[in-house]
Amino acid sequence: MQGYILPLEKLIEQFERLPGIGHKTAVRLAFSILEGSEEEAQAFAQALLDAKQKIVRCKICQNISDAEICSVCSDPKRDRTMICVVEDSKAVMALERVKEYTGLYHVLHGALSPMDGIGPDQLTIRELIARLTDGEVREILLATNPNIEGETTAVYLSKLMKPLGVRVSRLAYGVPVGGDIDYADEVTLFRAIEGRRDL
Amino acid sequence: MQGYILPLEKLIEQFERLPGIGHKTAVRLAFSILEGSEEEAQAFAQALLDAKQKIVRCKICQNISDAEICSVCSDPKRDRTMICVVEDSKAVMALERVKEYTGLYHVLHGALSPMDGIGPDQLTIRELIARLTDGEVREILLATNPNIEGETTAVYLSKLMKPLGVRVSRLAYGVPVGGDIDYADEVTLFRAIEGRRDL
Repeated sequence: MQGYILPLEKLIEQFERLPGIGHKTAVRLAFSILEGSEEEAQAFAQALLDAKQKIVRCKICQNISDAEICSVCSDPKRDRTMICVVEDSKAVMALERVKEYTGLYHVLHGALSPMDGIGPDQLTIRELIARLTDGEVREILLATNPNIEGETTAVYLSKLMKPLGVRVSRLAYGVPVGGDIDYADEVTLFRAIEGRRDL
Repeated sequence: MQGYILPLEKLIEQFERLPGIGHKTAVRLAFSILEGSEEEAQAFAQALLDAKQKIVRCKICQNISDAEICSVCSDPKRDRTMICVVEDSKAVMALERVKEYTGLYHVLHGALSPMDGIGPDQLTIRELIARLTDGEVREILLATNPNIEGETTAVYLSKLMKPLGVRVSRLAYGVPVGGDIDYADEVTLFRAIEGRRDL
């Protein structure tokens, strides 16, 4: 026996391609498939195919959706005067869990990063600008990630959109609720002091 | 948006079924599929199906194989007088990496565990006994896992096979090579002292 048999080898390879899955974990996961039933493997395979085939981008907000227009954009109860701009769909989910935000979203699918060759054309910025033409949107809340790329993107978008007459805001920086000040890094603490509010 | 869209939800569920994969990891893995190409998802789905459809049990040793008779059993260079009995295919792979062992294998597909309802009939013990009928096999090396179930299985098999006139041996217990004696547990140390050898 030279290493693994081919179909097993291939399955291990597929698991290894996943982010954060090393060789040993991939072997363990592949064996768990072998130990499961054929129906289970078929259901898994179908779920993979369906995820790629049935999930499209919402024509309005560019978020992933199983319909042309996503459930947020098609919800008449959402506040159409506000758009929260995020880097990816995971951020939309995180914000939806808060339940406080009732506006719409716009998913950029990335952040500006000249080092990685990601400029404005690689993001859905054109689609965002197009949403501002009818004058209904009054505020853009920039919720890109609090890192260099996210910051760069926020500054870029802010310069681009302010001349269009909309209010442009940014998520507040500060110490995380429930966290311990001891563990906050200096930049976060500096931003928290800078953004201090009167009680 | 109530939670995730359905095809994504289903894919997350499939990843969550895998051993050691929690919800957050499952979400991350599912998104990595969405970010990949459709061809990649198809290759993954095909690998899952192939693993279940093309992998069978070797008719002789019961190890997983992509042919009726596995590459070890069909290799004329292997020593047919010795069978190493293991609990699963992963153990065969571990032993094959050593390259010192040139005999055959027998995969039990489990270990005796009355608590979990696993008796002799749930293992491939009948197939093992059948391999001893032609008198070619002279030694059975029991390499079940060094835990209660593995021990119970080894003792059971030993009692069953000794009357058949074969030598029955067991892997040696002791401190792992390269390990630190400080870290060895008491039972292992006790076994290492008990099994000490003259220099």
